[in-house]
Amino acid sequence: MAVFINISTSLDGYVAGPDPTLEEPLGQGGEQLHEWIFPLAAWREPHGLSGGETGPEDDLVRESVARTGAVIMGRRMFSGGSGPWESDPNAEAWWGDDPPFHVPVFVLTHHEREPVQKEGGTTFTFVTDGFESALEQARAAAGDQDVAIAGGGEVAQQALRAGVVHDVTLHLAPVLLGGGASLFGDVRTNLKLRLTNVLEGAHATHLQYDVER
Amino acid sequence: MAVFINISTSLDGYVAGPDPTLEEPLGQGGEQLHEWIFPLAAWREPHGLSGGETGPEDDLVRESVARTGAVIMGRRMFSGGSGPWESDPNAEAWWGDDPPFHVPVFVLTHHEREPVQKEGGTTFTFVTDGFESALEQARAAAGDQDVAIAGGGEVAQQALRAGVVHDVTLHLAPVLLGGGASLFGDVRTNLKLRLTNVLEGAHATHLQYDVER
Repeated sequence: MAVFINISTSLDGYVAGPDPTLEEPLGQGGEQLHEWIFPLAAWREPHGLSGGETGPEDDLVRESVARTGAVIMGRRMFSGGSGPWESDPNAEAWWGDDPPFHVPVFVLTHHEREPVQKEGGTTFTFVTDGFESALEQARAAAGDQDVAIAGGGEVAQQALRAGVVHDVTLHLAPVLLGGGASLFGDVRTNLKLRLTNVLEGAHATHLQYDVER
Repeated sequence: MAVFINISTSLDGYVAGPDPTLEEPLGQGGEQLHEWIFPLAAWREPHGLSGGETGPEDDLVRESVARTGAVIMGRRMFSGGSGPWESDPNAEAWWGDDPPFHVPVFVLTHHEREPVQKEGGTTFTFVTDGFESALEQARAAAGDQDVAIAGGGEVAQQALRAGVVHDVTLHLAPVLLGGGASLFGDVRTNLKLRLTNVLEGAHATHLQYDVER
């Protein structure tokens, strides 16, 4: 059972651009970070779409999906909102009735909320007592599989600070956003990693690293 | 004649670590960014050393050296200092009598100083009237060859803001420094690039991009 970060980032280290809105949840230019994944069969399938590209990038996504037994994400990735749920216009999140995760998802938030069960095996559990608690619950839910840290940057930073990250997959989009949500922030770890795989795609370079212990 | 950025960076986008000193000019952990280059014959040669590794990484460095007709760098890269030259304990820079550049180097500074001629073809010209002026002089000096933006981050950002960068070579070291000198800072360009080459090395991943126009 490993904890891994799996996230798309700009060349200047942002997982979302500046000024996110409900219409543009990834901020100015942020959609470009994910361009690489939309054509892939492995992305289309869990979104209920047929067809799509196969090949090495598709394989990479499939491997990541196959190892994922639970997901941890931040509140902002879930809904784009903050504050009490009653006043969050996107409290039901971006993904409709059948979200693409199909595993238990643990959402870090400061605001309590009952768990939500969606179709297709996705459950959203809202964790208000911190990253360690979310991790413990995600580990239990994942069983023999791994726990994916999906984003945003703040959650990835909490995982890095906690020293629990086994490996990191970065999907490096060839764009400078110049602001927004920083992936690594100021995590003062002096953390060393070891490159295990590079894959060149049309819209992103995929870099996989093991964290050195 | 093209302008290109050629720089080593951490995975979290720092070209030097926090708290640089004269003893540790690249800041805490910053030396790790350059580990990849020290074993290479193409690095040892211009430093007056024999031997060293050959192969694809060595070729990459040789190509970069071959195209470089002039270099632009910041004052901090030059000496680590700031303020008047009289009070800069490293005013003669890091590289001794025969610096490894062997071409004209233009140093951006706020403090006037006569040019310095070193052995082996390296000259240091101190430019106090801004990046555009440094670029004009470097272009003239480079002739048919290209102008390399060597660092630090602030100079790279000025070049990006000026819209003059043709291509970018990043040597991505697998380390998180968590602070220091940021490569891209907050350049708000929404700049798109196109990956032209990926090379996996033992201590860095080399990514080459063309800036899209």
